[in-house]
Amino acid sequence: MSEIVTAGILVIGDEILSGRTKDKNIGFIAEYLTNIGIDLKEVRVVADDEADIIAALNALRERYTYVFTTGGIGPTHDDITADSVAKAFRVGIDHHPEVVARFKERFKDDLNEARLRMARIPDGAELVQSATILAPGFMIGNVIVMAGVPSIMQAMMDIVAPKLKSGVKMLSDSVRANAREGDIGSPLRDIQKAYPETSIGSYPFLDEESKPNTNIVVRSRDADKLEAAMTEVKAMLAGLKVARP
Amino acid sequence: MSEIVTAGILVIGDEILSGRTKDKNIGFIAEYLTNIGIDLKEVRVVADDEADIIAALNALRERYTYVFTTGGIGPTHDDITADSVAKAFRVGIDHHPEVVARFKERFKDDLNEARLRMARIPDGAELVQSATILAPGFMIGNVIVMAGVPSIMQAMMDIVAPKLKSGVKMLSDSVRANAREGDIGSPLRDIQKAYPETSIGSYPFLDEESKPNTNIVVRSRDADKLEAAMTEVKAMLAGLKVARP
Repeated sequence: MSEIVTAGILVIGDEILSGRTKDKNIGFIAEYLTNIGIDLKEVRVVADDEADIIAALNALRERYTYVFTTGGIGPTHDDITADSVAKAFRVGIDHHPEVVARFKERFKDDLNEARLRMARIPDGAELVQSATILAPGFMIGNVIVMAGVPSIMQAMMDIVAPKLKSGVKMLSDSVRANAREGDIGSPLRDIQKAYPETSIGSYPFLDEESKPNTNIVVRSRDADKLEAAMTEVKAMLAGLKVARP
Repeated sequence: MSEIVTAGILVIGDEILSGRTKDKNIGFIAEYLTNIGIDLKEVRVVADDEADIIAALNALRERYTYVFTTGGIGPTHDDITADSVAKAFRVGIDHHPEVVARFKERFKDDLNEARLRMARIPDGAELVQSATILAPGFMIGNVIVMAGVPSIMQAMMDIVAPKLKSGVKMLSDSVRANAREGDIGSPLRDIQKAYPETSIGSYPFLDEESKPNTNIVVRSRDADKLEAAMTEVKAMLAGLKVARP
């Protein structure tokens, strides 16, 4: 049986919890991981608070194959992610010589104490950087530490992804039911029971005529079982006696 | 000293973790709570999995004044939130007579087993419903269970909010720095140290000229201290010797 590779996300930042900034990273990373065969199992959002970051990070890194963090690696006093990660791993942290050298070249006279904070990397971590990324992310153990700015985070995902082990990709197929969720709940449950190696989800929405409608999504790592379950779902929908309201 | 009222959010749903659905509820609830003086401290997203829901819910409800859940209260087999909440509280769950009566009136012959699932309410819970909400949410202990569909969740927040105790509202003020974050990190840290009863955050962004710029946000429950810290921040910005690149 193929290995299941799992992941958690830890979003770090007061601005998300205050509602001032609307997170765009969870959805991006979730979709990215699904596409490379990694199962996202849990997400947590915590404040820029050392104890909260350490507790959440330790909980997630013990449970899942990988943990992706976003936020808190900038140059200001509220950017405490790197130091918190070092404490969670009980390792030291210092200015990374390679990063300092790059910063000296790039910032020249503008390289000040605040910017040097961004060169603080926990001992033993591997840098996540490229020509277009100013302040690096890093990977330590099974934890990948990334920027909170979406465009930078996305560039970091592209750098890290090839280094990750990935599982058998989760396949999915969806169908528009043209039925209210409540009209298909019972038959859908029966199909789910008959196909335990698939995961069947139903998602209500208001369609273009403002009528309640439902998307049904079947997911499985086994293409044959996915197809068999979807065939049953479509047959069930075709046989629906209930007229739409 | 005024009481600090805290909250956690628990988002429940495979579709968020797969990236298929992009969550819109966290940002809405975060902003809502900030506006009524409740501090959102943590968010978790978990799958439609009973053990995961129970573990996360118990962790959050022990730590915070309130916990808001979204998702998993529909009519299909993957909607297991109400049952999981009952198990977390170790109480029974059954079809709520008032909800069943409403459903009979509304659905008439369409009231089937699947729809009746939506009438399952944990013992002792208080319904969260209105004329426009079909399937009710509920409040049990310090936990408020709401729909995942944003428009319904938002209607439920409006019903619940007046019943919650709220703390002294967090005030905030912001200023555009017209400076790179790395140029203001050190003076900003000094101001933060001098005003420990404020929380100063800095948020980099690319401005309309595609230049790196920074928003500075000062937050406090004390209007005078907020103003004093912001005055310092603005004086610091006015005195910046560094020319913009």
